[in-house]
Amino acid sequence: MDIAFLGLGTMGAPMARNLLKAGHTVHVWNRSPQAREALLQDGAHACDAPLDAAVAPVVLSMLADDAAVAEVIVDSGLLDALPEGAVHVNLATVSVAYARALAERHAARGVDYVAAPVVGRVDVAAAGKLNILAGGKAAAIERVQPLLDVLGARTWRFGEAPEQANAVKLATNFCLASAIGTMAEASALVRGHAVAPADFLEMLTSTVFAAPAYQGYGGLIAREQYTPAGFKMTLGLKDVRLALTAGEATQVPMPLASTLRDGLLEGIAQGDGALDWAALAKVSARRAGQQ
Amino acid sequence: MDIAFLGLGTMGAPMARNLLKAGHTVHVWNRSPQAREALLQDGAHACDAPLDAAVAPVVLSMLADDAAVAEVIVDSGLLDALPEGAVHVNLATVSVAYARALAERHAARGVDYVAAPVVGRVDVAAAGKLNILAGGKAAAIERVQPLLDVLGARTWRFGEAPEQANAVKLATNFCLASAIGTMAEASALVRGHAVAPADFLEMLTSTVFAAPAYQGYGGLIAREQYTPAGFKMTLGLKDVRLALTAGEATQVPMPLASTLRDGLLEGIAQGDGALDWAALAKVSARRAGQQ
Amino acid sequence: MDIAFLGLGTMGAPMARNLLKAGHTVHVWNRSPQAREALLQDGAHACDAPLDAAVAPVVLSMLADDAAVAEVIVDSGLLDALPEGAVHVNLATVSVAYARALAERHAARGVDYVAAPVVGRVDVAAAGKLNILAGGKAAAIERVQPLLDVLGARTWRFGEAPEQANAVKLATNFCLASAIGTMAEASALVRGHAVAPADFLEMLTSTVFAAPAYQGYGGLIAREQYTPAGFKMTLGLKDVRLALTAGEATQVPMPLASTLRDGLLEGIAQGDGALDWAALAKVSARRAGQQ
Amino acid sequence: MDIAFLGLGTMGAPMARNLLKAGHTVHVWNRSPQAREALLQDGAHACDAPLDAAVAPVVLSMLADDAAVAEVIVDSGLLDALPEGAVHVNLATVSVAYARALAERHAARGVDYVAAPVVGRVDVAAAGKLNILAGGKAAAIERVQPLLDVLGARTWRFGEAPEQANAVKLATNFCLASAIGTMAEASALVRGHAVAPADFLEMLTSTVFAAPAYQGYGGLIAREQYTPAGFKMTLGLKDVRLALTAGEATQVPMPLASTLRDGLLEGIAQGDGALDWAALAKVSARRAGQQ
Repeated sequence: MDIAFLGLGTMGAPMARNLLKAGHTVHVWNRSPQAREALLQDGAHACDAPLDAAVAPVVLSMLADDAAVAEVIVDSGLLDALPEGAVHVNLATVSVAYARALAERHAARGVDYVAAPVVGRVDVAAAGKLNILAGGKAAAIERVQPLLDVLGARTWRFGEAPEQANAVKLATNFCLASAIGTMAEASALVRGHAVAPADFLEMLTSTVFAAPAYQGYGGLIAREQYTPAGFKMTLGLKDVRLALTAGEATQVPMPLASTLRDGLLEGIAQGDGALDWAALAKVSARRAGQQ
Repeated sequence: MDIAFLGLGTMGAPMARNLLKAGHTVHVWNRSPQAREALLQDGAHACDAPLDAAVAPVVLSMLADDAAVAEVIVDSGLLDALPEGAVHVNLATVSVAYARALAERHAARGVDYVAAPVVGRVDVAAAGKLNILAGGKAAAIERVQPLLDVLGARTWRFGEAPEQANAVKLATNFCLASAIGTMAEASALVRGHAVAPADFLEMLTSTVFAAPAYQGYGGLIAREQYTPAGFKMTLGLKDVRLALTAGEATQVPMPLASTLRDGLLEGIAQGDGALDWAALAKVSARRAGQQ
Repeated sequence: MDIAFLGLGTMGAPMARNLLKAGHTVHVWNRSPQAREALLQDGAHACDAPLDAAVAPVVLSMLADDAAVAEVIVDSGLLDALPEGAVHVNLATVSVAYARALAERHAARGVDYVAAPVVGRVDVAAAGKLNILAGGKAAAIERVQPLLDVLGARTWRFGEAPEQANAVKLATNFCLASAIGTMAEASALVRGHAVAPADFLEMLTSTVFAAPAYQGYGGLIAREQYTPAGFKMTLGLKDVRLALTAGEATQVPMPLASTLRDGLLEGIAQGDGALDWAALAKVSARRAGQQ
Repeated sequence: MDIAFLGLGTMGAPMARNLLKAGHTVHVWNRSPQAREALLQDGAHACDAPLDAAVAPVVLSMLADDAAVAEVIVDSGLLDALPEGAVHVNLATVSVAYARALAERHAARGVDYVAAPVVGRVDVAAAGKLNILAGGKAAAIERVQPLLDVLGARTWRFGEAPEQANAVKLATNFCLASAIGTMAEASALVRGHAVAPADFLEMLTSTVFAAPAYQGYGGLIAREQYTPAGFKMTLGLKDVRLALTAGEATQVPMPLASTLRDGLLEGIAQGDGALDWAALAKVSARRAGQQ
């Protein structure tokens, strides 16, 4: 398939590479051109500007946030330049409100819009084992399903409105934040009783909480290893805030999310914004006077 | 081994049966005598009062809470009647403060005290696959290890002070409460965006949260199946309160636990105290005006 | 002084009238023209569009929110049409971020910008006894001080940056929300012990909490009188959210504000968004199963 | 009237002195005898042990907490020694549960029990201007009303069950905690925007929040003057915990109280437990990275 891929960050680059490996023709763009060099050597075609991506009838993007999507997809002129009948697959975590606005904008242009935020970190992306949360018209999703099958282990569909997939993604990231924050408080509790958090977490994540989320973040907390950050506290704050906003839009109070937001903000205020959000454990320890 | 087992409730009965099956001589007592009938038919010996348990040098108890332990073990005269060198294994979830007091009281009597609260629900107990969180002197634990091996898949040791195991148990139950409360809020969020919670939870618990805790409680929430209660909201409130109290004892603030306490209390105030604590999902839904 | 006044809602109308009574020449505009009739009969001059307000070198506005200010002051062309050296006094509660943006925009046009959000409800506005929280260049504030003296009992200055006054206003409204939410929880607590909230609140607001905020809202709670709304729950939610956002901008966690936000959102979800925000007392009572 | 007064701490001593000045015969007891010296010189009679207070038909006590009341009134043998028809006025803040238990115990002995916790700090006590929250049988309260009139500006009655007055007292102290915590967060918010908290608080407590609670604690926060403590953070934590427990007893969730509990606990964990509870402002500032 002839496709364009915009956004070659830590997640986007391995995803684009997998598409290339699978035999697709891939046109790549990234804000800083050096990120695309390796891909070009492997056979990707260079786009010098987002607008150049209009050559492909299928555009995938993996951009940082609402503002980046607005700039690269809309303000660049790309959306207006896409041929009618094209499809845009937005793999990023964006706000529900912006997802809805984007969907309307694409519809007005006659371009299909598929929200396809992903669950999984860099290594999972590289292995092509992501879980993909898809929202959008069934026909549009089916059209790009071969591409999604390259990127992920499984595609989960959550409705005809693209923003439904974004709501599910934000709900999932809230669950991750809560898992971290919960292990953080629980670790402070057992430390207060002279039990090493690592011992507690080993038991916890080998038994009733033997899941990737707990094992991954529990390991970071046990080792107090918050750098390099897989996902920064500042990004965590952003996503929890987006979950709260998505809740507010449909009048869903989320007091646990509020508490997590306050904790992430506190960690950032202490200067730890660039650490992995597992550093919520530092916040809990500091509150308890344990460091 | 010649042992006594006090407390034949939904958890205690299958544990006592497993000990019997493993060839031990088991003297059993329960507040309501009918609970022991089946065990007596299988070869257990009857104790008509807790004090009768003093015939065995090893006493295990699985009682409801601090008050029940105080009544059955201490006020009954049993502790005073145990021979010096006996060992008492307390399998129940009690408060950290009472665990410490009990340990002192046993020490004063020359009786070894092992805290061994368990992780796992009834079916796990019946299968002898519990995870046992042990606290106490190493020699005492080793002495009863053959019994713990009958009851559980693995024994995790958390320190020489018995109450350390209770702190870990309360931390674990707090993590369970948080997992439930988190799925409750996340489910309300996605429902607000017209996504069925069951669809969201299936994805969540098949991927990054594929752990028994999430799968079990996620299933109950997906099916809105809160009765029969595996663990009632009132018991959940008790355990979260004990976790908060254990935190306060060593100056560990736990704002997520506070939020969960408020949610459980709200559910109980709405008349749902006898439902499974997975009914925190009803609290989140009600707050959002979804029911 | 020759002035224009835009926004003749429940607060704006009595303020404009007071300026008229004090002998100033007042050009008035309002979205729905009927609101200006009474003022025109009293001698005010009509503006048919916001742009008409450019005739006056001093413009005051009392508009609903950020969006209304953007539409009426900026998008209408008014700001661009104002003569260099004019001054705009924004009496409304807007977000800190938008206040900053507005200040920059005015500066670029050579128009002075004074933020002057007010504390006090309609009757206080009518009596010309508002407390005015002023932010902006000293010279600009002094220039409009005679007008502020007509509107308020006192002008409090909070800095050269206009948005500082907005931060203080949001902090004040947060304090009001907290006073209400606190009386709500305390009333539920005493009701749970068979004490009438009215009796408790009479004592409270006659003694250590004998302040207008507590007496006013305490009275509403005691009488369960939530309509007509002096300030709707939806507006309360907006202002608490703005306070949280202003906090986030400078990394200030505000967990009490988060809790209040969740309570207001819950009340709105229950269908009470149009009630006075004193109806937080209904939220607390409902959570406790008291209604 | 012939009365005994037990507990001559910072609050009790001036109260006993006022009773003495008013012409009553006062028998005084205190744990550390030096506290009673000044009162003896002024004409009070010494009790060497709590039991000696049984000489008076009216006993007032102002003791630290549940445990102190239990020790001094019950375990000392005083309650058993009081003549039938005597009355005990408990001026202290105790838990609702213990208040109820005490009332039953007094009733069994034929001794009237009046709960009369007071609102006001030391200077108010010295001026005889306390607000007294009375619970108990009307006849019993009327009997001691002449004494309460000496101690306070006004007696507020809250029901026939003594613990109702304790519930009101705990609700009042929760309101104080919330006022402090709210000013703490609001001060951090304005400081984040370069407004001095003292400037903000002066405005706040001169206008809508012009009440003793806000002016007193607002002044402490403005001056960052947390020592000497009028009321320590540790005592504040105790009272907020008692309010939460009193709420739990009748299924009243109090999320603002939970948040305040966490904040007080955090302050204590940071080593500030002996500071005035106005030091919640330090907690908010620290969370925001402002110190």
